[in-house]
Amino acid sequence: MLLSKLVGERTKTSPADATAISHILLVRAGYIKLVSNGIWSLAMPAKRISQKIEKIIREEMDAIEGQEVSFPVVMPKDLWAESGRYYSIGEEMVRFKDRGGRDLVLGMTHEEAAVQFARDAVNSYQQLPFMIYQVQTKFRDEARSRGGLIRVREFTMKDAYSFHADMDDLRAYYDRAYKAYENVFRRIGMKKVVAVKADSGMMGGSISHEFMLLTDIGEDTIVYCPTCGYKANMEVATTVRKTVRDEKSEEVREIFTGDSHDIDSVAKLLKVTPDKTVKAVCYFLKGTEKVVVCFTRGDLEINESKLTKLLKSQIVPADITGSDVLHAGNIGCLGLDASRLAGVFYDESLRSTNNMVTGGNKDGYHITGLDFDRDMQGVTFDDIAKVCVGDVCPVCGKPLALENGIEVGNIFQLGTKYTKTMNMTVLGKDGKSFTPVMGCYGIGVGRALASVAEESHDEKGLIWPMTIAPWQVCLCGLRLDDESVKKAADALYADMQKAGIEVLYDDRDASAGVKFSDADLMGLPIRVVISPRGLAQGTVEITKRDKTLTENVPLEKAISFVRTVIDEEINKLQ
Amino acid sequence: MLLSKLVGERTKTSPADATAISHILLVRAGYIKLVSNGIWSLAMPAKRISQKIEKIIREEMDAIEGQEVSFPVVMPKDLWAESGRYYSIGEEMVRFKDRGGRDLVLGMTHEEAAVQFARDAVNSYQQLPFMIYQVQTKFRDEARSRGGLIRVREFTMKDAYSFHADMDDLRAYYDRAYKAYENVFRRIGMKKVVAVKADSGMMGGSISHEFMLLTDIGEDTIVYCPTCGYKANMEVATTVRKTVRDEKSEEVREIFTGDSHDIDSVAKLLKVTPDKTVKAVCYFLKGTEKVVVCFTRGDLEINESKLTKLLKSQIVPADITGSDVLHAGNIGCLGLDASRLAGVFYDESLRSTNNMVTGGNKDGYHITGLDFDRDMQGVTFDDIAKVCVGDVCPVCGKPLALENGIEVGNIFQLGTKYTKTMNMTVLGKDGKSFTPVMGCYGIGVGRALASVAEESHDEKGLIWPMTIAPWQVCLCGLRLDDESVKKAADALYADMQKAGIEVLYDDRDASAGVKFSDADLMGLPIRVVISPRGLAQGTVEITKRDKTLTENVPLEKAISFVRTVIDEEINKLQ
Repeated sequence: MLLSKLVGERTKTSPADATAISHILLVRAGYIKLVSNGIWSLAMPAKRISQKIEKIIREEMDAIEGQEVSFPVVMPKDLWAESGRYYSIGEEMVRFKDRGGRDLVLGMTHEEAAVQFARDAVNSYQQLPFMIYQVQTKFRDEARSRGGLIRVREFTMKDAYSFHADMDDLRAYYDRAYKAYENVFRRIGMKKVVAVKADSGMMGGSISHEFMLLTDIGEDTIVYCPTCGYKANMEVATTVRKTVRDEKSEEVREIFTGDSHDIDSVAKLLKVTPDKTVKAVCYFLKGTEKVVVCFTRGDLEINESKLTKLLKSQIVPADITGSDVLHAGNIGCLGLDASRLAGVFYDESLRSTNNMVTGGNKDGYHITGLDFDRDMQGVTFDDIAKVCVGDVCPVCGKPLALENGIEVGNIFQLGTKYTKTMNMTVLGKDGKSFTPVMGCYGIGVGRALASVAEESHDEKGLIWPMTIAPWQVCLCGLRLDDESVKKAADALYADMQKAGIEVLYDDRDASAGVKFSDADLMGLPIRVVISPRGLAQGTVEITKRDKTLTENVPLEKAISFVRTVIDEEINKLQ
Repeated sequence: MLLSKLVGERTKTSPADATAISHILLVRAGYIKLVSNGIWSLAMPAKRISQKIEKIIREEMDAIEGQEVSFPVVMPKDLWAESGRYYSIGEEMVRFKDRGGRDLVLGMTHEEAAVQFARDAVNSYQQLPFMIYQVQTKFRDEARSRGGLIRVREFTMKDAYSFHADMDDLRAYYDRAYKAYENVFRRIGMKKVVAVKADSGMMGGSISHEFMLLTDIGEDTIVYCPTCGYKANMEVATTVRKTVRDEKSEEVREIFTGDSHDIDSVAKLLKVTPDKTVKAVCYFLKGTEKVVVCFTRGDLEINESKLTKLLKSQIVPADITGSDVLHAGNIGCLGLDASRLAGVFYDESLRSTNNMVTGGNKDGYHITGLDFDRDMQGVTFDDIAKVCVGDVCPVCGKPLALENGIEVGNIFQLGTKYTKTMNMTVLGKDGKSFTPVMGCYGIGVGRALASVAEESHDEKGLIWPMTIAPWQVCLCGLRLDDESVKKAADALYADMQKAGIEVLYDDRDASAGVKFSDADLMGLPIRVVISPRGLAQGTVEITKRDKTLTENVPLEKAISFVRTVIDEEINKLQ
């Protein structure tokens, strides 16, 4: 490819709203172009990277017996009504009517389509297990798309669906898919990827894992144990909380606390540490005005995922100012009238605590000396708080740590959630029909591309791993107005192409400075410089973008040298 | 691939509403699965065919310097408002709002996205010409989707956009694209494809061609000259009409014709041939109640495409029953009050005719003896009638013929329609900015697949060309309960895969009859049968699906034999 003809201009200007480095560099290198909020066009180099990522994904899916199929982007409401998700999924799913007034949706995932496809085509246990997958455009109307290709509304995704006779078979296949995912991320050159236990969320099912690229800009929090290796998404991470109970329980007393409503000010006023207070957090059951009140230790946060799972209902944070049942800022455990509430929950961290401060259920008042063993007999405690740094590992008891990550893939053991609601049955060995179990497995292609960029760059620009680089080599011709250089550069370009090397030829009439900075920005793994000075000595300069190599190589050996570097780099990631 | 594991069942039952043979066979062979009206899922074999077609298209696009990019499926209204098509395109474009209330559309074509992408990235004439293309999902809300994959609502399309400094450069590139299209259709094994001049329709621009597969089920009509090779889509086809004028012009007379309103009954009543009558056809300007009246010779039909172009406005057939201006069934040229009409048009076929019958503009009456030279002086004549069989070729004057076809590709010289409305300019050599001209080039992948099936099948099933067959070989193991056969078949399957032959292995425990009829239905180009009888003689039976070959080949030579057949077949289509 000639750089002079490549559509997509390099620029020094960063997009105004960009904070993620992948966003900045992909735009500056002319790889991606914003069309609308969360909707992008890809220029040729980004398309090539995507295609290489997709090829690696396909190879790994084929290696675990995947059958590539194609489901539609646009689907009828009926299909999503069958599973119930037409009603349970919120505004992130685009719904519209066709010219005949029929309801359609844009697919954000394809469990329903996979079951509709498979349920007529598969009749016997003998056809199980099987896996079908596709690589396809999806649309999710994210409220806050950001970070370039990290969080978008339209995206290309590989989504796979496996069907099994029983959970044992699913679990065995799930392990293979897990390994295939590790292969994918390794092969595309992503380094700091960890798999963590995750919440299944809107997908349903029980066990699931997220593959997380560890990076500061990640918006997901991963809880991990540096000692034993326990890893979980914040949504499902657990800990073991030791109850520290004072030797002597004081009496319950009501105290005027005036305008002190939040934990910090109440704790300060009453001269206690936040862990001796009880925090109250209120939620509405989604779409209703029914309130749920949650109590946890003052130094902890409510884990909304855990709460959602416990409630089996979606929730939204509730502003209860003006409520005639609850006193905002003074809600407490003792004497709370639960009759007009949808539920009251207590976090495990409160179990057996004493001398606690809690709201007085009366404007301007708190209660001190609360003893859960003495004063709150009969309440049950649930794990509804977030894990925090220093909490102990549920496996080995050592302190946990937190890290940020970007979710780059996820896998789910769905069980019969979709096959059951959508009436998929097959005949068993015994002649009786049964409901197969399902797994599903997703990777976003664009996010993978951006995540590699996030991890692999320097101050000058992108550094693509050899396996997914848009081209393997950037051939820079310097002083192409010198005819002998032009001739040699053109010949080397042609010879490289003949040798099957993917090469971007900077054939522009531009200075060495411009060419080098563009080459650095675009991040092709090998740079070959052909110049009058080098040619005078019969050499070209070969540099690796990751700075691990700079060498003057005789012109006639340039191709075999480059070939060797390419093969080495690719082999490293196999 | 093992047939026992392939998801997608063969069936003898045709879909209830199917008439197109490709629709019937693709469903029966388990290749495609209906999801909703005009929306399909593709099983693995259909996906593989699509991918092979896409690969051939990509190779041909790359050969004419195409840069593969990716535009979004979902686009903001703004983009389509810029070109004006947000307003000019009808219900076939899906429009919806996102969660923030912003207007979005589903792309049915991507001229707007291409210009948005290119206008910032390209600044100088030196970057011209270039071509960008994508292979991507599109949605067009067809009022009547039908014929399986022939006319769908969701489809995968290769769409390409070229940008040029001037029309000469566009025309030269257009010729290259035209040849690339011929290459694509030849290489995917489509035989009866012709390129015809076409109307540019909603795309705009002047010159365009449609590539048509000639087939009886085609819903487009192609006008062609068997003598000189003139070809055109019915929408733009022209002819030269000789005026046959009677020697003697009769006088104009008003005659009571009662309930005779249509051409046939009036002609019969008045004992004239239909070509001595004048046909009146009425249209509304779309979205209004303004009426246009068109007159043509009684034996001809109005060509609505030509009329639309003439009017520069969309039209819909008008039911004028109850109008107080027009008398349905009695509309005539003479004395028609045009003051309350949006226009009156006369087809070329009426020029200088005499002794014509036309409506009396009065219920129950017609006029005879109309002489256009004498009575209709000053009217202008336009070419607004359809060409019919026997009309003469506008090039050589010999009789024209008609044929039905499916449009499998189209190419357009768009000129500046989009670059101008969307303000794309580049700097010229002289330092002044100018508006580049554009071409665009489309091929529907699914329709191409179905069109090949439409052309290439027999009474038993599909017959895939080697270049796009989902697998090259169907390996049928007969009596696999016989361990020695099973062993030999498994070994041959493994060896074929090692030799890089794409093979579908029918490893099922089924009868020869079932296996052969499934193999015929699925249509893989080569069938290899391994059976106890053959093995006893050390041979396998190799058959070509198109019946041009059946041979018993020594087992050890099977692979090289198959290889040779594959190469021959592929070379034939290069």
